Order: sequence, then C-alpha cells, then structure tokens
Amino acid sequence: MELNSLPSKLLENAVNEMSSLPGVGRKTALRLVLHLLKQPREQVQRFGSSFIALRNEVKSCRVCSNISDNDTCEICANPRRDRSTVCVVESIKDVLSIESTGQYGGVYHVLGGIISPINGVAPSDLSIEKLVERAGAGDINEVIVALSTTMEGETTAYYLYKKLKDFPVQLSALARGVGFGDELEYTDEITLGRSIKNRTPFESVFGHR
Amino acid sequence: MELNSLPSKLLENAVNEMSSLPGVGRKTALRLVLHLLKQPREQVQRFGSSFIALRNEVKSCRVCSNISDNDTCEICANPRRDRSTVCVVESIKDVLSIESTGQYGGVYHVLGGIISPINGVAPSDLSIEKLVERAGAGDINEVIVALSTTMEGETTAYYLYKKLKDFPVQLSALARGVGFGDELEYTDEITLGRSIKNRTPFESVFGHR
Repeated sequence: MELNSLPSKLLENAVNEMSSLPGVGRKTALRLVLHLLKQPREQVQRFGSSFIALRNEVKSCRVCSNISDNDTCEICANPRRDRSTVCVVESIKDVLSIESTGQYGGVYHVLGGIISPINGVAPSDLSIEKLVERAGAGDINEVIVALSTTMEGETTAYYLYKKLKDFPVQLSALARGVGFGDELEYTDEITLGRSIKNRTPFESVFGHR
Repeated sequence: MELNSLPSKLLENAVNEMSSLPGVGRKTALRLVLHLLKQPREQVQRFGSSFIALRNEVKSCRVCSNISDNDTCEICANPRRDRSTVCVVESIKDVLSIESTGQYGGVYHVLGGIISPINGVAPSDLSIEKLVERAGAGDINEVIVALSTTMEGETTAYYLYKKLKDFPVQLSALARGVGFGDELEYTDEITLGRSIKNRTPFESVFGHR
C-alpha cells in the first residue's frame, strides 16, 4: 500500500501522529486511523482528549513521584500502608507490577529511570536526592531496591547503596532465584548458582502459598 | 501487571481509550499511554488533536466518496485522470492499494462497505445509487468491479452487475489468477483452474514489464 501520498492532509497528519507511537508502523497506523474515522464524533473527541487531559493534568506524587491525580498518590495517602518500608523502583510500571502481586504493604519511591551513561541518564536526572531526604527524615526502617538485574540496574543499585549506607536504614534487594515455572535445565548458571547459595527453608516457601 | 486498578483516573481513561483501538490490548495500551506521558505537552496536544480534527473536518468526495480535504477529492479533480473509467472498491484502503500500483489512470467509486447480511449491511447502506446515477449520466464507458473474492464481495459484484447491466457501460472485473511470487504447488485449484482457462498471450505478460 502506498502510504507516502495519502489523499488528505488531515489523514496524513493523523497517520503520522499514530505512527509516532513505539511499535506502530505506518501500515498499522493507517488501519487504526481509518478505524477511528468510522467511529462517532463524540467517541473520537473522547479518544483524543483523554491523552491531552492525562498529559496536562496528571500529577507526580510529591512524596514518591508515582503518578497521581492529587498531590499525594493513593498509596502514600493510604493509612494502612507501612510508611517505614520504601520500595525503590525505576518507573510507574514497576509500581503496578509489584502492586499486582498483592504481597507488598509498604510505600514506593519512583526514580523515574535508571543511571545509564549510554543513554545520557545521570544520577541527577533521577529522584535520588528526594530518596536520600526521605531516608534522612528518619521515618524509614527499610529500603528495598527493586531494580532490573541489568548492568544499568546494578549500577543504579550500587549508587543508591553508597548514598544510603550511612543512614540507619536496612537496605535490601529483591530475592534472586529460579522463577516460578522455570525449568532448571534452561536456567542460566548465575541464577542457578545464586539460588543454591541463597536457598530458603522449605517452610518459608510453602508458608507463602 | 495489575491493570484493573490504575492509580490515576486520568491514566485509567487514557488506557481505556487506547485499548478501544482494534488489536490493542490493555497491556499495550498502558505501554503506549506511558510513552505519551513522557512526551512534551505540545506533542501530546498535537497527537490527540490530529484525530479529532480528522474526524470533524475530513470530507467525503461528492463524486466518488473517497476521503478528501475538499468537496471533490484529488483524484476526481485531477484533469489527467480518465473520468470515463470508474473502478468500484469497498473502501478508501483499496483506493490507496490500487493507487500504489501506479497502473491505473481512471477514477474511483468507493462503496463504503460490501453487502453482508450477517453484518447487517444492506445495498442501501452503500453508495450504490450514486454509482447508478454516475452510470446513468452517460459519461462512463467502463466500470471495473474491484472487490474482494469473498462470498460477500461476489454477492456485491453480482448486485452491481444487475444494477448496471442495462446501461451502455462495459463491466469488467479484476483479473483472477496466480499471484506474483506464488508457487503453483500451493495455489488452490479454483485459482489455478481459472488462470489456465483465462490464460493470456505471452507478449501481454512481458509487455507490462
């Protein structure tokens, strides 16, 4: 399909905008835009406005930088959450992932990225100072560093360790080991080695069920 | 990832709207919306507005029902196109596909769908009367029916045949046959049978090169 010469400037613009989304090519973009064109006007109005409203009106929680409709996010504002335990994550997505486990009752701190010299992300680009302030305020007992086990995640974790180690705060990391449903045969040797070294008592495994 | 309870109503709305697109699930929708959230405000404004502008402002060509920014589309308005040859297609997408071949110099007629009792599409839902009017106006020599070779496409083609057969207009269909790059071994017998019956002189094949 020839997509370089669309018969309408309005269509052309909409297809360009749609294909600016990650993973959406021009062909898919055209399909999606033609779908929108068949919807009622009010629906397309709602569609387009929803993103503009989100971008213009959504806030960042003043405590943890999580996404929020108010100054303080639902998690930080929830009196049943344990505010002495802070889980440090890279992004909002990670908050959603951890929340979905239903296993965590503490609060969060969203860094807004990880340290990555290649991508030009320095510690000052992240909300690390705010985390240090929170630790310095003295209300925190434990900081759980929940970052990806990539080079950049490890670098960021080490940086956080150096920044936080002098505070009277317990620092912990996510448990590393064999994932649920993993076959030992196909588990890499570093993961398998760590999971043998850091083996856990049988009761604690079945106690979680 | 728990997607039923997003921490922000604005985010929730945007994800709902994004996942209303065909083929976009909630997980992908969240990824796309979080991407938008990281873009500058002006860009998100442009993104959202482009669809609203398209839906509210785009026109349907008064001659052929093709998509257009003006009352008459670029193709119908082009004096170099042969207005005595009309290619009947289901949708705007088909116009784009045929235009991309660079092999067609006539004009179009966009039906806006095909007859489909299952989907509740009756002949009166399509721009068939407008086509009959065009044929009746006497300026048309040939109508090429370029519909899909599905049951519904064939039904629509037959309906058009009945409506147009009494006009002094040559009716033709797209050539059926083995596609470019097809292996005979894997070509279905109906297609292969038709392509033997409707075989073309060698010169006409290589003359097109």
